[in-house]
Amino acid sequence: MEVQGGDHPYVPRDLKLPGFVPCFLTQLDIVSVYGVASTLVFAFMWIFSGRFPKISKGDRLLMCWWIFTGLTHMVLEGYFVFSPNFYKEKTPFYLAEVWKEYSKGDSRYAARDSAVISVEGITAVLEGPACLLAVYAIATRKSYRYILQVAISLGQLYGTAVYFITAVLEGDNFAVSPYYYYWYYVFANSFWVWIPTIIVVHCWKRISSAVQIQDQTKTKTR
Amino acid sequence: MEVQGGDHPYVPRDLKLPGFVPCFLTQLDIVSVYGVASTLVFAFMWIFSGRFPKISKGDRLLMCWWIFTGLTHMVLEGYFVFSPNFYKEKTPFYLAEVWKEYSKGDSRYAARDSAVISVEGITAVLEGPACLLAVYAIATRKSYRYILQVAISLGQLYGTAVYFITAVLEGDNFAVSPYYYYWYYVFANSFWVWIPTIIVVHCWKRISSAVQIQDQTKTKTR
Repeated sequence: MEVQGGDHPYVPRDLKLPGFVPCFLTQLDIVSVYGVASTLVFAFMWIFSGRFPKISKGDRLLMCWWIFTGLTHMVLEGYFVFSPNFYKEKTPFYLAEVWKEYSKGDSRYAARDSAVISVEGITAVLEGPACLLAVYAIATRKSYRYILQVAISLGQLYGTAVYFITAVLEGDNFAVSPYYYYWYYVFANSFWVWIPTIIVVHCWKRISSAVQIQDQTKTKTR
Repeated sequence: MEVQGGDHPYVPRDLKLPGFVPCFLTQLDIVSVYGVASTLVFAFMWIFSGRFPKISKGDRLLMCWWIFTGLTHMVLEGYFVFSPNFYKEKTPFYLAEVWKEYSKGDSRYAARDSAVISVEGITAVLEGPACLLAVYAIATRKSYRYILQVAISLGQLYGTAVYFITAVLEGDNFAVSPYYYYWYYVFANSFWVWIPTIIVVHCWKRISSAVQIQDQTKTKTR
C-alpha cells in the first residue's frame, strides 16, 4: 500500500512525504463519522444541559458548542500535533484518515508547517481543556464564565488569523483543487471565525454591563 | 556600503539577503533612543493621567504601559511589517536600524519568516490601536476597560507563544551569539509575557467579581 518515491496526492507537487500511505476510507466515511459523532455530542449536551433549571436556551446552545469544539481540539487536533507521521499510517485508523483527507485542502498539515503546528498545539493543549471548563462554568454559573469564553474565542480567532495569514504569505497554494480549497480550508474553518466572533460580542456586552453596574454601585456608596 | 554576495552578520549563515547594508548606528545609540523615548512616553502619561482625579495609581501605571506598548506595536512593529526591505536601507534611518540590530537576536525578521510577519501584522494593525483605546478606556472609566485589556493582553501572549514555538520547531538557531539570544530574543520579549499575564489576572478578577455581583443582584430581584 506504501507509495514509492514520496508520491502523494497533495499540492505543491514537490512536497516530499516519504512513506506516504493513501487514505483507506472514502471522503463520505470520514466526513460522516465526524458529522454523526458531532451530532451525538451536541444531542447529549442539549439533553444533559436541560437538567439544569436556571440555564437559558442560549447558554445550553453554548454548552453544546463548547463540548463539540473542545473535543475537536483535544481529540482531532491533539492527535495531529503529536503524530508527525500520520501520513505513513498503514491501517485505516480514523484520526490519521482525517488528516490525510484534510491535507488535500491544506498540505501544510502533512508537511508539518511550524506555524500550523504552533497554532494547533496551543489549540489542542490549552484551548481544548479550557472549552470543557467553559461547559462546567456555564452549567454552574461561575462568575468567570463570560471572561473564559472570551479568552478561548479570542484564542480561536487569533489562531485562525495566523493560520490564514501564513498561508497567504507562503503563496496560498496548498490545496489539491478549488473543491478542497473551499470546502475544507475555507468552509470548515469558517465556523471557527463566525461562532467565536458571535460569542466574543455576546460575552463582551455581558461583562461591560456587569462592570457598569459595579461602577454605579461604587459611585452610589461613596 | 552595500555588502556584496548577500553577506551579513546573521545566523544561519546560509541565509540569503542580497543588498544587505550594515547598521550605521551603534547598539548603544539604538537601545538608548528606544530607552529615552520610552521613558519620555511613560513620564508624559504618568503626569497626564494624574489630571484625572478618580484614576488609581495602578490604573495610571496601566495607562503608561498601554501607551508605551501601543506605540511600540504601531511605530516599531508597524514599520517592520510594511518594510520587507529594511535590511537594504542605505541611510541611518532609525526604524530600519532597530530591525537590523534586532535581527542579530532573531534573523527571522530579516528573513521575512511568515509566522513572524503574521504575528507582527496582527500586533501592529489590530493590537497597537487597541492599546491606545485602552488608555482612553481607563482614563474615562469605560465599562469595557477590563475586557479590552484582557483581549489585548491575551493577543500579546498568543503572539509571543506562536513566536517562540515556531522558533523551537525550526531549530532555534537564529541568533548571532548567546549574548543576542538572551538579551534581544529572551529578555526583551519577556516583558510581553509577564506584564500581559499580570494584567490578565488582574482584570479577570475584576470582571469575575462584577459578574458575581450582577448574578447576586438578579437572584435577589427574582
